[in-house]
Amino acid sequence: MEIEMEGVDHLASERSKAQFDVEEMKVVWAGSRHALEVSDRISRLVASDPAFQKDNRSRLSRKELFKNTLKKAAHAWKRIIELRLSEEESSRLRFYVDEPAFTDLHWGMFVPAIKGQGTEEQLQKWLPLAYKMQIIGCYAQTELGHGSNVQGLETTATFDPQTDEFILHSPTLTSSKWWPGGLGKVSTHAVVYARLITDGQDYGVNGFIVQLRSLDDHLPLPGITVGDIGMKFGSGAYNTMDNGVLRFDHVRIPRDQMLMRVSQVTREGNFVQSNVPRQLVYGTMVYVRQTIVADASCALSRAVCIATRYSAIRRQFGSQNGGDETQVIDYKTQQSRLFPLLASAYAFRFVGEWLKWLYTDVTQRLQANDFSTLPEAHACTAGLKSLTTSATADGIEECRKLCGGHGYLCSSGLPELFAVYIPACTYEGDNIVLLLQVARSLMKTVSQLGSGKKPVGTTAYMGRVEQLMQCHCAVQRAEDWLKPSVILEAFEARSARMSVACAQSLANFANPEEGFLELSADLIEAAVAHCQLIVVSKFIEKLQQDIPGKGVKEQLEILCNIYALFLLHKHLGDFLKTGCISPKQASLANDQLRSLYSQVRPNAIALVDAFNYTDHFLGSVLGRYDGNVYPKLYEEAWKDPLNDSVVPDGYQEYIRPMLKQQLRNARL
Amino acid sequence: MEIEMEGVDHLASERSKAQFDVEEMKVVWAGSRHALEVSDRISRLVASDPAFQKDNRSRLSRKELFKNTLKKAAHAWKRIIELRLSEEESSRLRFYVDEPAFTDLHWGMFVPAIKGQGTEEQLQKWLPLAYKMQIIGCYAQTELGHGSNVQGLETTATFDPQTDEFILHSPTLTSSKWWPGGLGKVSTHAVVYARLITDGQDYGVNGFIVQLRSLDDHLPLPGITVGDIGMKFGSGAYNTMDNGVLRFDHVRIPRDQMLMRVSQVTREGNFVQSNVPRQLVYGTMVYVRQTIVADASCALSRAVCIATRYSAIRRQFGSQNGGDETQVIDYKTQQSRLFPLLASAYAFRFVGEWLKWLYTDVTQRLQANDFSTLPEAHACTAGLKSLTTSATADGIEECRKLCGGHGYLCSSGLPELFAVYIPACTYEGDNIVLLLQVARSLMKTVSQLGSGKKPVGTTAYMGRVEQLMQCHCAVQRAEDWLKPSVILEAFEARSARMSVACAQSLANFANPEEGFLELSADLIEAAVAHCQLIVVSKFIEKLQQDIPGKGVKEQLEILCNIYALFLLHKHLGDFLKTGCISPKQASLANDQLRSLYSQVRPNAIALVDAFNYTDHFLGSVLGRYDGNVYPKLYEEAWKDPLNDSVVPDGYQEYIRPMLKQQLRNARL
Repeated sequence: MEIEMEGVDHLASERSKAQFDVEEMKVVWAGSRHALEVSDRISRLVASDPAFQKDNRSRLSRKELFKNTLKKAAHAWKRIIELRLSEEESSRLRFYVDEPAFTDLHWGMFVPAIKGQGTEEQLQKWLPLAYKMQIIGCYAQTELGHGSNVQGLETTATFDPQTDEFILHSPTLTSSKWWPGGLGKVSTHAVVYARLITDGQDYGVNGFIVQLRSLDDHLPLPGITVGDIGMKFGSGAYNTMDNGVLRFDHVRIPRDQMLMRVSQVTREGNFVQSNVPRQLVYGTMVYVRQTIVADASCALSRAVCIATRYSAIRRQFGSQNGGDETQVIDYKTQQSRLFPLLASAYAFRFVGEWLKWLYTDVTQRLQANDFSTLPEAHACTAGLKSLTTSATADGIEECRKLCGGHGYLCSSGLPELFAVYIPACTYEGDNIVLLLQVARSLMKTVSQLGSGKKPVGTTAYMGRVEQLMQCHCAVQRAEDWLKPSVILEAFEARSARMSVACAQSLANFANPEEGFLELSADLIEAAVAHCQLIVVSKFIEKLQQDIPGKGVKEQLEILCNIYALFLLHKHLGDFLKTGCISPKQASLANDQLRSLYSQVRPNAIALVDAFNYTDHFLGSVLGRYDGNVYPKLYEEAWKDPLNDSVVPDGYQEYIRPMLKQQLRNARL
Repeated sequence: MEIEMEGVDHLASERSKAQFDVEEMKVVWAGSRHALEVSDRISRLVASDPAFQKDNRSRLSRKELFKNTLKKAAHAWKRIIELRLSEEESSRLRFYVDEPAFTDLHWGMFVPAIKGQGTEEQLQKWLPLAYKMQIIGCYAQTELGHGSNVQGLETTATFDPQTDEFILHSPTLTSSKWWPGGLGKVSTHAVVYARLITDGQDYGVNGFIVQLRSLDDHLPLPGITVGDIGMKFGSGAYNTMDNGVLRFDHVRIPRDQMLMRVSQVTREGNFVQSNVPRQLVYGTMVYVRQTIVADASCALSRAVCIATRYSAIRRQFGSQNGGDETQVIDYKTQQSRLFPLLASAYAFRFVGEWLKWLYTDVTQRLQANDFSTLPEAHACTAGLKSLTTSATADGIEECRKLCGGHGYLCSSGLPELFAVYIPACTYEGDNIVLLLQVARSLMKTVSQLGSGKKPVGTTAYMGRVEQLMQCHCAVQRAEDWLKPSVILEAFEARSARMSVACAQSLANFANPEEGFLELSADLIEAAVAHCQLIVVSKFIEKLQQDIPGKGVKEQLEILCNIYALFLLHKHLGDFLKTGCISPKQASLANDQLRSLYSQVRPNAIALVDAFNYTDHFLGSVLGRYDGNVYPKLYEEAWKDPLNDSVVPDGYQEYIRPMLKQQLRNARL
């Protein structure tokens, strides 16, 4: 067998082809030199700590896996304390540990819920406990019977004026809390969403801080039934998390554990709305969803990094005169599937950056009591959450397929990446439900066009609807498709025309609600067109900024064009049906796309190197930085528990009697 | 908590809505009354035998899982012997046991390989041993470095005339056999594909029967290194299979263990081709791939059955005046994703039936030395394998999404169904590579059009290419889209025009091979268009048969139209770009599609009941026949090992020190 040298970079010749400054691209990807420095330092810290090893996850039983996650969470917290890490650094550390755990919910949902919905006194009481992890909290909203329809939740919190307490109760089976992460086995407390009932009146869903487990022995408190809801998709993956079930049997909590920033119940049991604007809730949703968009670009870029590196190592067919076979990355079939995903990873990164800015902007306006941009920001964030998470889930699976058979092995990292990622399409708003919200907002925008009310933010282009209904695409040669103005106009016209067509169809219905339901599949397509336009336009805006570094901007321009023209090809029916472009122009776009693939090809490895992921974080034998794929695949195989013995357990009982024709009398 | 009665059918009211005879539809689905009787009897036999329980798979460690599979395989074989099951019944039994195992390869690959490639003497020696399972065999073709490119395999079988033996050897790391199922831990023998070398000359890849393990103690024979390649996608799923790695260190086998039907090596070491036509190999490929198409319709129909039943049980939003919420199956967004998959399951079933006929036809012709239809049959089977497996893999995941959050739980059955199915997109020909073969055959057909050679079989329509290049779609009203002739013409025109366009583009290249590589992404789209046409036309042909049973034919007509118009919508760019239909006609097709969804809605549950799957086979809490979803989901959760104890293992070491602020001094 040939001898493999450790330390040889099998991708060195690929790296030497790059036509741009990779270090500068790393800065662009990270967002700033500071962000790059932090990410780089923390990711190496995690990668070098044996306690954070994760390549054995698929081989662990549920119990072993979960205990190991508890250990990592404790170790991470210990390191955070010891190294006095900042909030940013701590959050990066949890990110690079790369294992879903109760801490995600504690920091990402429990603490923000209290911050956003608690009164000043409640903040002072609960936050210090949470910050020190003297209590561990989760976010108990979803029930067995209700997810998307939050207003349909069935858990009740009935005020008892005699004792000044709320009585939490699960009246039906479907009212069982179901899914909350960290609930099943760990959390001592939860923010529980329940129907507030006082004086026989139902005031809808409100949040309550409820202690679930004793701080002495961790046993559930009286009246509380709590447990894990069982195995989820994949091995390893989200099974590190104790998604839980929770039932209340008349559990009493003090009145002051209702989160009372927005609504209150007085000592007498009167329900009072505070003058804090309810729109604040939307601000929080914008925040959470913009982090999800940022996560999408991370997950997709990981998968793309693995598939790109492996595509440069893997060779198949095309050997001539006994020479090497062709690298699969050189096949146009591979390029036409892989490079649009590479471009999408960058596109999502930049739209995520912009959403971060949007959130800051919205927050500042809210503080100044300006709610004018909130609805549009809310719709656009919802739409981008839906678009990017769906594309990322599909993209990860596509990357797995691009790795051929070996992508099916857990050691490729892709099965677990897919399994752990896909919940993002469901949580924080089901992706279809979110697109319907975007469509609703678009229909509102269209209906108000005549009224003189100017569409704002990402819907501003609708203000030019008359022009967009009539414009003709100016493309005459393939190169014309490289012009940002041409691309932008085509995407604006497509989106505007689809929205207007939907609005016209809706007008044929006597009952608009009925029409909306009947046409919802078309409305979703219009919403997607609008969201894709946003991503394309934010990518183009990014390119108008000052981007230093040799060749960096040129690469990004190529990626931007690939992203746009790939979408145009994928949704060609939209563009042709609305007459935005002609069949001939579609052909030219396709020609241009092929040429762009050739331009990105020599830079592909460097473009994924720019993500700056450690081998630990990637967690993939196929995606190794040094490309030393085959020896490591081989090595990894022998670690399977089945290889502990040469003759497998069960041979004597089941295989031997079969071979020896002794099954008839065997007791199985 | 409400009390749930066992035995209540929560879907009874749905079933009463059906407008057709479900029992007759079961016959249509099964293919014949006889096939239905066998399936029904064997599936109940399996479901009622506790040894075949499978709902605990996701909770087992790899070793437990594998041992359990060995037990099931032995038990199945015991039952087959005891009940004297026929070959058909035995194969059905393995199907309903529904767990990948070494027996699949033994019966499905090892035995057929010997049958197809062995001489009369070899058949007489090896088949009796294999039929009684006195030896267990697998099929060792794929290597670490080579899958699709079979001609690139590196394992060598060098003839030694001195001892009349072949020496099998693995000269490189990448020559390690990698992936063969049943190889890792079980098989005693393998058909090994290796480069035949005699007298210093390489005669390419041939098959050899090689004993791997001792029949006494199951230990690998000298010179053989063999093991399992480790965990694959998902929990449970394909991890019941011991996909293996195998290396030879100069292992000697007698000369007569080369499979010599097609080529021989004489005692003197001369390589001789027999006069058996090499095309026979293609006959076997047609056989294997048609079974894969049949499996696709099974896998997709399972997922669709689960998603359809759950969509009728699940309610969300739309409650008015305190009434029930809307069943999610009533939402057009749900229908427009679910019903095309229901239609696809039926479409794949019928095209699979037709492929079975095609195989019989090809076999009869081969026996009469008529090879004329073989190339077309081979290309069409390859294309349909690719089309149906890709659509099924995507369809299963779409069904999971249609089940919302609960589809992510293993108890929904969908994660495992996806994980276990997706290898079908890779094995027996990577789906992209297969489509390129179809494209190559289409380009050949187009290039021969002028030569007077008439295209045959599924490419016969190409003979009318001049008419198809010019025809205009006659649709004026939405109902016109219900006419089979209209649909057929649109699909034929689209496919012909895409193939011709590719051929024209290819003509611009001086080097045709270079052109083929450069345009491969377009060529694949043309191949897909051709394959979709075949599926549509075979569905239409099926409807022209005599189909008894009240309303059965009408339902199938609706499904056929849904399948065709859904494809038209999905690939609208193709139809518009080639000018096969106008934007207005596209809109009318969309209107018709919505109306078809409304027509299928009341019949949806009965249409999935017609698959006649037992709850055991479905393996899904969400897809239960009685629709008693929520209590069973709740019950299932408590079976997770994490719920063995109220306080989780790891509390003392990791959670408590965190809560008590004692981490700093903890040794983790």
